Amino acid sequence: MTEFELIATLTARLPTNDFVVQGAGDDCAVLELGSPGTQTLLKTDAVVEGIHFLPEVEPARVGHKALGRCLSDIAAMGGTPAAAVVTLGLPKEFDSNRILELYRGLNRLAARHQVAVVGGETTTNPERLWVSVTVLGTVPRGRALLRSGAREGDVLFVSGELGGSLAGKHLDFEPRLEEGRWLGESGQVTALMDVSDGLAGDLGHMLLASGGLGAELRAAALPISQAARERARQGDLARPAQLAALSDGEDFELLFTVPPGQTVAVLDGWKSRFPEVKLSCIGKVTREPGIRLRTEDGIRPVQAKGYEHFT
Amino acid sequence: MTEFELIATLTARLPTNDFVVQGAGDDCAVLELGSPGTQTLLKTDAVVEGIHFLPEVEPARVGHKALGRCLSDIAAMGGTPAAAVVTLGLPKEFDSNRILELYRGLNRLAARHQVAVVGGETTTNPERLWVSVTVLGTVPRGRALLRSGAREGDVLFVSGELGGSLAGKHLDFEPRLEEGRWLGESGQVTALMDVSDGLAGDLGHMLLASGGLGAELRAAALPISQAARERARQGDLARPAQLAALSDGEDFELLFTVPPGQTVAVLDGWKSRFPEVKLSCIGKVTREPGIRLRTEDGIRPVQAKGYEHFT
Repeated sequence: MTEFELIATLTARLPTNDFVVQGAGDDCAVLELGSPGTQTLLKTDAVVEGIHFLPEVEPARVGHKALGRCLSDIAAMGGTPAAAVVTLGLPKEFDSNRILELYRGLNRLAARHQVAVVGGETTTNPERLWVSVTVLGTVPRGRALLRSGAREGDVLFVSGELGGSLAGKHLDFEPRLEEGRWLGESGQVTALMDVSDGLAGDLGHMLLASGGLGAELRAAALPISQAARERARQGDLARPAQLAALSDGEDFELLFTVPPGQTVAVLDGWKSRFPEVKLSCIGKVTREPGIRLRTEDGIRPVQAKGYEHFT
Repeated sequence: MTEFELIATLTARLPTNDFVVQGAGDDCAVLELGSPGTQTLLKTDAVVEGIHFLPEVEPARVGHKALGRCLSDIAAMGGTPAAAVVTLGLPKEFDSNRILELYRGLNRLAARHQVAVVGGETTTNPERLWVSVTVLGTVPRGRALLRSGAREGDVLFVSGELGGSLAGKHLDFEPRLEEGRWLGESGQVTALMDVSDGLAGDLGHMLLASGGLGAELRAAALPISQAARERARQGDLARPAQLAALSDGEDFELLFTVPPGQTVAVLDGWKSRFPEVKLSCIGKVTREPGIRLRTEDGIRPVQAKGYEHFT
């Protein structure tokens, strides 16, 4: 059984109840807790030493990343984070200063986005530092932006730049909370998710969740990051920048769809509201399944496979 | 810096906001999300292979324990669990059946208490299985039972039996959710928490949180479990059963205080509502700090130190 099959099997069997508006499978769960104006978002994630960060990384950046990943998922629903809890697994030999620094980075990001840190646990994970974070957020009632709402003909947008995140952005990214909230309030977005496993892979998830649609991407429109370009210049073993933009993980940008009639309004509104954040119109949603890339040389299929876990 | 000092330092610096009614330091956080009738509870916890369970333990019991620990904390606020999210850290070599079985145990407990499992993550933790669970719950507005409400003269109660949990109860305990909710609804309880780090240690936390009070326990009233008694008969190296009841971890029973005038009502109500669950009146809260044990031979101090983490 592959990891994918395992997760699909597990997800199909999860118990549910009347609190659940959206269960496992989107960026966050959406819950109905009886507040007249809002619904509740819930998301958990973890970063593990040697897997998501190297032992020598400054601990404040580890704390930033651990919380930031969950905040990016709240952003990807159009939500507002409210509170976080943290579980630390501490190696046998741990330095108190490392933990204080980790929390300094986490708390600084939390404070910047008015997130309360309301508890946690510390336990032992003898071989490596482990940081689990759960974030609870809110979203205006009925306005959570799911990944399953894309429709044939919708235009695809992505924020920021893609690829080469390992050079540093995977530790220092700022979750796109204001942008996500603005997209939710705009009422013009049909589907939204964050790009954490690579554009091609995550777009594949969105298209599958939206009923098995496809997409055509314009190669010239892909916002390839400077880091991906630099890495591509580093010799034969490096990856082409375009491939990096399509498949590198941990971009933590927003991927969303807009009906064709509203694209200009969204582009203009974004530029006015977020003049320093690039927004790229990268292609469109098609009825034909699969992801295709249009280049100067024609159209070729893209394997909808992003960042691989367990590598 | 000891773990205790580290946690105290971290806790003092956590960011907060208007959502927070009760932050870190109680069994759960209490949040205000705008529901007219209820407030929201949030709790995270984790179990780690080799620390909280041995590698050979049946995985369904691991899943039960991972969720059960959080549910016990919801019970300890007088709350009702609504939804859970799970993060698994999978060892390099993992057996899909082990994970399916783990979820079977977790889902079975969730379904029995009408808890939805609404998402999670899987990642890698190469050396050992890791299971993080976060539970969101609800509690009637203003009725969360904190550990800080004990008052001088209050009578101390504990549910079930104590000690010897390692013989099996630490994996198979049923979280006292109905009992906790009933205590909340009774309106007669001043402080409530669950006993997870040993009676003496957790009672110490309750007394400290309640303004630095003390307690006198009656040795003859301590509900010593059969497992603790059996272990005490196993020769010189075994622990006296009374010490086990005072200091063994992972009992997951409810410890609470009731003003002296209401003890009979609580005892009678409990016996009528939960005839199969023992309820013991184990002593009283005193102005004099410290925990003392009254035996046939007189009174002696009890070191308020329960289960030690990091051993």
